[in-house]
Amino acid sequence: MTDNNLYLKQMSIDVEKARQSASFRIQDMNKLLLNNSYDANQKAKKIAESEPVFDKFPMHFKNRAEQLAHSLKMAKRLIELEEEHHLSQQEFSALVLYVDMLNPLSLHYSAFMSVIQAQGTPEQIKKWYDPAKRLAIIGCYAQTELSHGSNVAGLKTVALFDEKTEEFIIHTPDLTAAKWWIGGLGVVSTHAVVQAQLVIANKSYGPHLFIVPIRSPIDHKPLPGITVGDIGPKAYGGFATMDNGFAIFDHVRIPRDNMLMKFAQVTRQGKYVAPVHDKLSYGGMVKLRVDIFADAGLKLAKAATITTRYCTVRRQFGPNLETPVIEYSSVQHRLMPLISIAYGIYITSKDLYGQFEALTKQLEIGEAQSLPEVHATSCALKSWGTRRSTDGIEECRKAMGGHGYSIFSGVADMFATFVPSNTYEGDNYVLSQQVARFLLKQLTSQKQVYSTAAYVKEDVKLLPIKSHEQLLDPNVQLALFKARSARLVRQLAQQLQAGLSWSEVSVECWDINFAHAEYLVAHSMIQKAQQAKPTPLGDVLKRLTDLFCLHHLATSATFLATSTVSPLELITIKQAYHQTILSIAKDAIPLTDAFGFSDRQLNSALGRYDGRAYEALWEAVQKNPINHDEAQRAQLTKLVFDILHRRDNLSYIQASKL
Amino acid sequence: MTDNNLYLKQMSIDVEKARQSASFRIQDMNKLLLNNSYDANQKAKKIAESEPVFDKFPMHFKNRAEQLAHSLKMAKRLIELEEEHHLSQQEFSALVLYVDMLNPLSLHYSAFMSVIQAQGTPEQIKKWYDPAKRLAIIGCYAQTELSHGSNVAGLKTVALFDEKTEEFIIHTPDLTAAKWWIGGLGVVSTHAVVQAQLVIANKSYGPHLFIVPIRSPIDHKPLPGITVGDIGPKAYGGFATMDNGFAIFDHVRIPRDNMLMKFAQVTRQGKYVAPVHDKLSYGGMVKLRVDIFADAGLKLAKAATITTRYCTVRRQFGPNLETPVIEYSSVQHRLMPLISIAYGIYITSKDLYGQFEALTKQLEIGEAQSLPEVHATSCALKSWGTRRSTDGIEECRKAMGGHGYSIFSGVADMFATFVPSNTYEGDNYVLSQQVARFLLKQLTSQKQVYSTAAYVKEDVKLLPIKSHEQLLDPNVQLALFKARSARLVRQLAQQLQAGLSWSEVSVECWDINFAHAEYLVAHSMIQKAQQAKPTPLGDVLKRLTDLFCLHHLATSATFLATSTVSPLELITIKQAYHQTILSIAKDAIPLTDAFGFSDRQLNSALGRYDGRAYEALWEAVQKNPINHDEAQRAQLTKLVFDILHRRDNLSYIQASKL
Repeated sequence: MTDNNLYLKQMSIDVEKARQSASFRIQDMNKLLLNNSYDANQKAKKIAESEPVFDKFPMHFKNRAEQLAHSLKMAKRLIELEEEHHLSQQEFSALVLYVDMLNPLSLHYSAFMSVIQAQGTPEQIKKWYDPAKRLAIIGCYAQTELSHGSNVAGLKTVALFDEKTEEFIIHTPDLTAAKWWIGGLGVVSTHAVVQAQLVIANKSYGPHLFIVPIRSPIDHKPLPGITVGDIGPKAYGGFATMDNGFAIFDHVRIPRDNMLMKFAQVTRQGKYVAPVHDKLSYGGMVKLRVDIFADAGLKLAKAATITTRYCTVRRQFGPNLETPVIEYSSVQHRLMPLISIAYGIYITSKDLYGQFEALTKQLEIGEAQSLPEVHATSCALKSWGTRRSTDGIEECRKAMGGHGYSIFSGVADMFATFVPSNTYEGDNYVLSQQVARFLLKQLTSQKQVYSTAAYVKEDVKLLPIKSHEQLLDPNVQLALFKARSARLVRQLAQQLQAGLSWSEVSVECWDINFAHAEYLVAHSMIQKAQQAKPTPLGDVLKRLTDLFCLHHLATSATFLATSTVSPLELITIKQAYHQTILSIAKDAIPLTDAFGFSDRQLNSALGRYDGRAYEALWEAVQKNPINHDEAQRAQLTKLVFDILHRRDNLSYIQASKL
Repeated sequence: MTDNNLYLKQMSIDVEKARQSASFRIQDMNKLLLNNSYDANQKAKKIAESEPVFDKFPMHFKNRAEQLAHSLKMAKRLIELEEEHHLSQQEFSALVLYVDMLNPLSLHYSAFMSVIQAQGTPEQIKKWYDPAKRLAIIGCYAQTELSHGSNVAGLKTVALFDEKTEEFIIHTPDLTAAKWWIGGLGVVSTHAVVQAQLVIANKSYGPHLFIVPIRSPIDHKPLPGITVGDIGPKAYGGFATMDNGFAIFDHVRIPRDNMLMKFAQVTRQGKYVAPVHDKLSYGGMVKLRVDIFADAGLKLAKAATITTRYCTVRRQFGPNLETPVIEYSSVQHRLMPLISIAYGIYITSKDLYGQFEALTKQLEIGEAQSLPEVHATSCALKSWGTRRSTDGIEECRKAMGGHGYSIFSGVADMFATFVPSNTYEGDNYVLSQQVARFLLKQLTSQKQVYSTAAYVKEDVKLLPIKSHEQLLDPNVQLALFKARSARLVRQLAQQLQAGLSWSEVSVECWDINFAHAEYLVAHSMIQKAQQAKPTPLGDVLKRLTDLFCLHHLATSATFLATSTVSPLELITIKQAYHQTILSIAKDAIPLTDAFGFSDRQLNSALGRYDGRAYEALWEAVQKNPINHDEAQRAQLTKLVFDILHRRDNLSYIQASKL
């Protein structure tokens, strides 16, 4: 057997050729995509590439406890590197993004510490935030209960104020109120911020936040009255590195000042002081969705990079060396739109971060005009983005054929870990109702309408589509996306007027959410392409924008259903769509290179930068412990003999010389 | 904490109430669905329920090698039970279906033994089939190579005839030709049927089948010249119980009569005798797809059963005890159509088995008239069914909210194990091209057209849809499905005439495949409902058929795109769709009960027959080893201390009394 055959050599040649023929400079596009985090990203990558513990390959062969152990080592190394390299906040974030793996401390930073900072008094911040920062305590955020996820008001854990001792008694009334799914709680946390119904003198004041010690930071034993543990493995092997946990509280007493009191307060005498305004707390929820939306782009970009590379080097059917599968239209039609969507999310999330920062400044001075709009935008983009991204990742996996199902494809892990984002921080179906309500309010409001939703009142003019040129006109594109969404909103208004209840129109809300989100993304992409106009980047961004628009025009049933597009126009659209796909396919390797992922970040045999997918698969397989671990082999062979040598088979085998 | 609270009690009441209000007898429906395998199924279930090794729950906590070991124990017990209970072929199949878990011997039966039987001479059958039956040898079927899946003609493993020794030399010319993905080969098999290019005196005769000994059945060591092993973990933790393997052959010599010679032959002198006809071999390929289609129904039925039960007992929002989530239209719109699709697959697969049996009889007498039709039908249904089923299973998982992401939901395993069916035994996109080619041929053929495809030439009359009644008329339903598919086929013909190549129309082929498959399923369902007409079963089958039709009419873009349905008609369709969903929702629990799965088969905390989902989740979590395995806990706690007690944190903790 010779390893240097024609096929293997051709793989590296193919991917390199595709790279050389780029219509733009790959590094320029990488800078454009990363924007002001480019330098932080470069620095983080340089540091991380040489850290052995950040190599995720060995995770493939570890069991759950071993994966958790490995992620704790990663968490520790992250902390050390922050100190060793005096990383800025942005650089540390870039390093965390580089690693792109949950660990039991993830929510310590993103939820426990941030909620104390946002909702604690200055004294509380000093008391809890400082030790949290030096990791003398590790915390989690305990909201969800066994039977309550979406419905926060329905939470049943109780915080009963005991006036005599000036304490709260934290109690779980029954099994359905057990805290559940809490990241960091299962094995690691010493403290939790617990959402519980505040009760004073038999009167309930709704859910409030309390800091509850869970395990001793000295010996790590659970504290009296607390039953705590890990809720077990998750679907698809996802979240294996996170210790999602449960907790049951049996009359656990905490001091009065463990209630986070920046807004609502309970005095020593048991008097409830209602918050003047608590809108600042909404900022945190919006932020989580903004982050998830950006993450949807990151994950999809990785999957698209791997799949583009493998489909460029994989050949099947056709003459001589066979045809690279990326030349098949079924592969192009699945993959190229996903590249445009990943770009769309990168570009739109930058805009969304901008809106969020503006909102934060408003909230800091006690104002909240743009809250409804930023809330609706973040809901729409979160639900659309997570769904599109997870469906897209799995479509990428399928497009890689048989080897896509190997763990070494690297794509399955992304789906496994990201797919719950469809449910957490607001189930997508629940969020879509909020988006629809917002748009409906804009439609019927007498007051000024938010700019991102102004189109619902617009009388959009649509000319018949007769040519490709029309379809590439940004004004035509925007008009089509506006018209579809506005018509869906108006249909919803009619249905509600006709007496349907909100719960009967949740599918319609879903369609509206998607139409609105796609309008927002198209809008951001069009702007970005126009900004970069006279450069080669501007040209390819324009083509990506066209692809994004044409993909949805050609494949989304709501354009037809709202008569925004007619079946006859659809034929023209599909022709233009097909041509745009071909134009992007030529740049597919450079466009995915431009996301800037290293081989180590992708952790994929199939998506190697140098195209040597099959050699990488071979190397990966050699590390499989089932092939060389003596104990495992001996046990398995014994079981094989239990079958093969049963009864008189052994003498039969010897006699018949099998 | 009291476990006997109102909410928990209500869960059992809710599910039982839904069961009591069934519009039909559940057992009658179970008999109808299982048809002539009902008795075998009952017997298998009775045997299996008391076998400890068939309890799949402990698998959740096992690593890869342990899962493989467990599945070997299952395989052994299956063999023993077959003997102990003198099971018929049908009963044994029912038992294997009950277990519903791949093991390293699965392909020994379904591929190795069956290919020897189908393609071996009587002497070869005696020599190999008999020891295989008593498991003195264990075999696999080695076709796929590292770089060749779909393209069988492109396989590169060589079988060179050596006239001097009357042997074949099996050789892997380079890494890309390594056998890969072969189920049963990684750890267990002693023998393989190997697809290799037959070469005699420098002339190649294309791929043929050879029996190659891999490991000694005595000491289980790999034989000289053979490099063999397991290819490692698969995506989503799927196929963990299967030892998919690789093999590289270095000039391995086998006797001439190890080539399966029922059709093609190589004489001692090295003369190649071409097969008179080899159509019998197609039967095997068709059979695999028929089985996969039926399996798509089984898996989707399980997921739908679990989800229906959990959504009936899960409450969220609303007054007092909150509203069962199954009453939300977003849940109903996702779940009810999936129930109708599962029924559609059950019913249609019975028809497909009938067609396959008729084909088998034809082939046995050397005829093959219906081969093209049965081939096309099986391709269309396999690709449609696997895609719909896997998408549906994941949609079920999402519809269960947060807990759907727990391994204890039981649904994720189904997706993980079944999703590769989209790729194996013919990648769905490749198969859809064959379906489109078949239909196109019917359109242009002068000869008689196959009955399942006759509609492509029909001049289907469509009257404007103005009422619900029209939409419930089976003739109208069939006309709509026929018209859509026929129009898509005619559009394709035009595109090809206009000069597009087949690789440019693969998305169109995909649409045609789906339209044709949905017509076939609608057709089977309509027939079945009419057969059962005057009974309560007939009534609910009619409603399920209506739902199947209306779901696709309301949600599939191709009805609009082909102008089979207008946007105005769509409004009427959606109203009728909504009403039909409500009517099925009332019977959702009995309809899924009627699939007849035991709790053990479902292996789901959420889908328990008695509705006690939360108590079951609690019990499951208590068995999680991370919560009680001392060694695991000690290791993890040490790593937590590495973070918590770093630097002077321990004294800081003690000083600040955290």
